Amino acid sequence: MTALIRPDLAALDKTDPLRPFRDRFALPQGVIYLDGNSLGALPRTTSARVAQVIESQWGRDLITSWNKHGWMALPGRIGDKIGRLIGALPGETMVGDSTSVNLFKALAAALKLRPGRKLILSEPANFPTDLYIAEGLAALLAEGHELKLVEPDEIAAAITDEVAVVMLTHVNYRTGRMHDMAAVTAKTHASGALMLWDLAHSAGAVPVDLNGAGADLAVGCGYKYLNGGPGAPAFLWVAERWHGRIAMPLTGWLGHAAPFAFETHFRPADGIARGLVGTPPILSLAALECGVDILLEASMADIREKSLMQSRLFAQLIEQELAGHGFNLVSPREDARRGSQVCIAHEQGYPIMQALIARGVIGDFRAPDILRFGFTPLYLGYGELWDAVWVLKEIMEDRSWDRPEYHARARVT
Amino acid sequence: MTALIRPDLAALDKTDPLRPFRDRFALPQGVIYLDGNSLGALPRTTSARVAQVIESQWGRDLITSWNKHGWMALPGRIGDKIGRLIGALPGETMVGDSTSVNLFKALAAALKLRPGRKLILSEPANFPTDLYIAEGLAALLAEGHELKLVEPDEIAAAITDEVAVVMLTHVNYRTGRMHDMAAVTAKTHASGALMLWDLAHSAGAVPVDLNGAGADLAVGCGYKYLNGGPGAPAFLWVAERWHGRIAMPLTGWLGHAAPFAFETHFRPADGIARGLVGTPPILSLAALECGVDILLEASMADIREKSLMQSRLFAQLIEQELAGHGFNLVSPREDARRGSQVCIAHEQGYPIMQALIARGVIGDFRAPDILRFGFTPLYLGYGELWDAVWVLKEIMEDRSWDRPEYHARARVT
Repeated sequence: MTALIRPDLAALDKTDPLRPFRDRFALPQGVIYLDGNSLGALPRTTSARVAQVIESQWGRDLITSWNKHGWMALPGRIGDKIGRLIGALPGETMVGDSTSVNLFKALAAALKLRPGRKLILSEPANFPTDLYIAEGLAALLAEGHELKLVEPDEIAAAITDEVAVVMLTHVNYRTGRMHDMAAVTAKTHASGALMLWDLAHSAGAVPVDLNGAGADLAVGCGYKYLNGGPGAPAFLWVAERWHGRIAMPLTGWLGHAAPFAFETHFRPADGIARGLVGTPPILSLAALECGVDILLEASMADIREKSLMQSRLFAQLIEQELAGHGFNLVSPREDARRGSQVCIAHEQGYPIMQALIARGVIGDFRAPDILRFGFTPLYLGYGELWDAVWVLKEIMEDRSWDRPEYHARARVT
Repeated sequence: MTALIRPDLAALDKTDPLRPFRDRFALPQGVIYLDGNSLGALPRTTSARVAQVIESQWGRDLITSWNKHGWMALPGRIGDKIGRLIGALPGETMVGDSTSVNLFKALAAALKLRPGRKLILSEPANFPTDLYIAEGLAALLAEGHELKLVEPDEIAAAITDEVAVVMLTHVNYRTGRMHDMAAVTAKTHASGALMLWDLAHSAGAVPVDLNGAGADLAVGCGYKYLNGGPGAPAFLWVAERWHGRIAMPLTGWLGHAAPFAFETHFRPADGIARGLVGTPPILSLAALECGVDILLEASMADIREKSLMQSRLFAQLIEQELAGHGFNLVSPREDARRGSQVCIAHEQGYPIMQALIARGVIGDFRAPDILRFGFTPLYLGYGELWDAVWVLKEIMEDRSWDRPEYHARARVT
């Protein structure tokens, strides 16, 4: 393979069909942002939209805004928009609560649909909150449920008739490894279990077709590739065939068939609305919608094509420029098995990442030794990939990563 | 009693020590807002603060904001501020999720602390989401738990040794009736049950002393008297003596002792932090803090004194000006039993409230026949009370409430 040079990458920027989207985001000068998979960038429309909701809706119309400005429709409207990114039918997706809370809803609902089966199957490298929520639910139910964790390659064999639900994150947060959604779902159904996907690192990042795969339940995150802002509301998806049969564990008033009738007993709403719990967080929903709207203007095929090209080139540049510096590629080389990130392991990963961030190249570190770089095709250029690797090379060659301040673990994220 | 005239109320505005706070809120012209108990008004600081968080923090510093701008500390910091309004010690209160979700956490935790007892005791007129959440939890656990509902006057007698937890809303959302927190809590403890208070209509509205009353658990709402904005995050309070012994049912990653160690198994954080679940909603938290900060500048004693004066005068004006129009006062006349609202029943309550709203007097209707008027002493003047009753009188005398458009039930709130 011919060595890449910077003009090769600059040339790709010139013909990039997604290049115009970069101007839709407010990106700081002097920063190469490779962490949109942790917190997506700020859409230029968000601040004005939130200010409008605050000043012209809440401030001016107060309580009447719930009707006048259609606030109550936001969880379903934005849910349907996200639904278009994940292969959902209209009415299958709602927005609200956090990914963790939505996972609790989905998981509890799944267990109730498979009362004789006691296993929740997942993998040890799943995002911790998924495992914690499952552990907590099993402890709460006290019916002998167990969270069984097996390595990715052993999952298919572990889907026995004791498994109530297979709970997997489609794209792994640390490694970027992507499951074959259709194949795992089919295997799960063959044994009579339900399939629950966490799309935190998939929605807006890779093409997802939940209905095509025949999945049962899914959750996902609003603040990563959907660019909804820090701690944005998450989403919950339930396949239409389960609507009507599914019982939610968090039976809040907005999941009631008639919330404003103030009845004494719970009657679940039809459809995905029964996944709602408390009053929708309007300011956060308004911000999230701005991020989702931009994504819907782009083509997921273009996004995926650029994402794969970026991760391929980035991995190639790391190997070309940083050979002998102790980096190991952790992410799958096979395109079909890789999400929109590249992870490389290094025993000094922590201080190296701090040194990168200090130089304006923002990725993140995931314990114990992973440097994680996310690719967000809407606002990340090809030339930046070269520049990021170049900074990394300088840091390694002059050993500037080895300063005391980069070893101090004060960071919380 | 001498009849009140408008100058009596205008005179009270002149000497009102809370009058300066009115200018801290952006209130629309031509509106008399008597629904701050449903959605609090907009503090003038909120829009700029949220814009700053969006543009200067999220937009400029992206993921590094979690550390640089102390985002991760917000749930505890704002929790402690709210704690000052409800008699909490520092470290007992956290902010996040909705009131319903927090109630689920508190209730599930309480049941696990009283495993031999199967009753959740409440009242039929409690806010429906509280009852629904309790019903849903009982169904989820499938351990024979039952939600027992008794009328307020029968609660004391119903607290038997079968009761695991007494779950009450301190100030009733419909009637404004307020429980004697200390007395009910003492009776609850005498039978070995736990006491869970919902402070949705109390925090920021009436003096609350959870520790003084010896309560165990509490939840409350951010968007009513705390002026945190539509769907603002809610709060959860756990008495310090339970920290360490309490198990949360929603074991998300931010309730872990070391969230960023990404461990495979859940270990709860010390203190109230174990009540956290998913990633904190930063934009909403920033808005909520603006509302709470204003309240902390005022004296709760002044707020309560004005609130009682306002509700007393309002009830008096209704009886003085609207005798013979079929209104019945539902709220308690005794100050110590009344929160910060006055509710009056009328068989045509729905269209009457719509006609009032059309004339700029905003209260709300609560099925089946309640007109509810909330008093928010920080931004509601005495003269407005006269004007509101005057508009109501006009509507009743010219029967303008009886137009078809006011009977149409399209409203969702």
